[in-house]
Amino acid sequence: MMEPIGKKRWAIAEGYIPPSSTGPHPQMTSHETVCLLNTGPNDAHVSITVFYVDRAPVGPYRLVVPSERTKHVRFNDLSDPAPIPSDKDFASLIESDVPIVVQHTRLDARQAENALLSTIAFAGNE
Amino acid sequence: MMEPIGKKRWAIAEGYIPPSSTGPHPQMTSHETVCLLNTGPNDAHVSITVFYVDRAPVGPYRLVVPSERTKHVRFNDLSDPAPIPSDKDFASLIESDVPIVVQHTRLDARQAENALLSTIAFAGNE
Amino acid sequence: MMEPIGKKRWAIAEGYIPPSSTGPHPQMTSHETVCLLNTGPNDAHVSITVFYVDRAPVGPYRLVVPSERTKHVRFNDLSDPAPIPSDKDFASLIESDVPIVVQHTRLDARQAENALLSTIAFAGNE
Amino acid sequence: MMEPIGKKRWAIAEGYIPPSSTGPHPQMTSHETVCLLNTGPNDAHVSITVFYVDRAPVGPYRLVVPSERTKHVRFNDLSDPAPIPSDKDFASLIESDVPIVVQHTRLDARQAENALLSTIAFAGNE
Repeated sequence: MMEPIGKKRWAIAEGYIPPSSTGPHPQMTSHETVCLLNTGPNDAHVSITVFYVDRAPVGPYRLVVPSERTKHVRFNDLSDPAPIPSDKDFASLIESDVPIVVQHTRLDARQAENALLSTIAFAGNE
Repeated sequence: MMEPIGKKRWAIAEGYIPPSSTGPHPQMTSHETVCLLNTGPNDAHVSITVFYVDRAPVGPYRLVVPSERTKHVRFNDLSDPAPIPSDKDFASLIESDVPIVVQHTRLDARQAENALLSTIAFAGNE
Repeated sequence: MMEPIGKKRWAIAEGYIPPSSTGPHPQMTSHETVCLLNTGPNDAHVSITVFYVDRAPVGPYRLVVPSERTKHVRFNDLSDPAPIPSDKDFASLIESDVPIVVQHTRLDARQAENALLSTIAFAGNE
Repeated sequence: MMEPIGKKRWAIAEGYIPPSSTGPHPQMTSHETVCLLNTGPNDAHVSITVFYVDRAPVGPYRLVVPSERTKHVRFNDLSDPAPIPSDKDFASLIESDVPIVVQHTRLDARQAENALLSTIAFAGNE
């Protein structure tokens, strides 16, 4: 049994769902993704809170990353308690009951040729 | 009340505002952005100092990120105490009185198709 | 003899091999790369474990990064114990017997113009 | 006098100078850049060592980042003790006598539309 790697609290300060796309769906649909990796022996119960510029945070969005699995979640697909509007700046806090690793990726397909960005999220101390 | 995540001092060594853009404004205007997230119960009073290659630092640029809000600031839009020239290398130091999370993103729209980069900034110890 | 820099355990939560490419091979073939740097006096024996969304992890993929050398490994090229399917989300855990530095890069050449992303991987405590 | 932010040892595992470019020079010349920020009261004396896949490291490349200045160095422009070949994988170790912040950026202009990547480098403990 390998020791799990990661932290329990993560933050992504950048967030933006482009309002349009060019190219075949779903691969080339503009999307903002949070990639979660759980290397440990227990399922990770994850809560995502979304922060906005000018209104109260929304959440938690709850999901499970099973033991020894990864899950790549498109912010576009989150709907409970509320969908995330496109073309609005947001940020997110990701909290888990067991250590996980979090990475942020965007595919921007507003123009004919796509653009990509990615970064490991910021890990809190816990 | 959740515990705030982040640090009080951050740095971004890369900085460059492309001198031109292609595509609809303002979404496709070339820009260099610093994304700030304040998950805590108190407003964050933030000071940004801009460093150059061959002249003294300029700042502080002051702004507030309210409690439980995010703010995505385009360096292009900073004007007090002085605008940041385009087509010049710069870097920045971001200091806050409460913990925040900082991420750096660029949209480069000089050519017909945009390009993106992003990284969590470097967090100091405090 | 300089002191080695790095950590022994790293994770990359994002992973995706685009299923197609445009442009000359091999430089413009879509690829997902893990870049390994070993600045130390001893060879690094590295094990990569690949995690999936809906099946058990696969690995270890074993490789050696010689003392004072770098190695940029395309996930596309890994074959033992099994190739990594394209167009499937994955994540990876990288473990070494000596300190190394790990960075993740993707060239996405599905469209006429390529897109790039990169981030230093997440370093565990060991 | 503000306290300097940063670390004295940094590493970048990814390195690659694209062999060709499209578009106006020098802005659109493909380049691999290391961005250095020195927020402190003393000049930073920086040594860069370049690591390769199949031959001994080359360096140090020496440069100075003055107090309270930034310097964005293109690997393409390094020549002493030896230029860095294009189209070859490399990695780099950056060492300074005072704390600095290091970020890695690439502009890839091999195709008609440019692509960008960036990440804060990996900081050692010192």
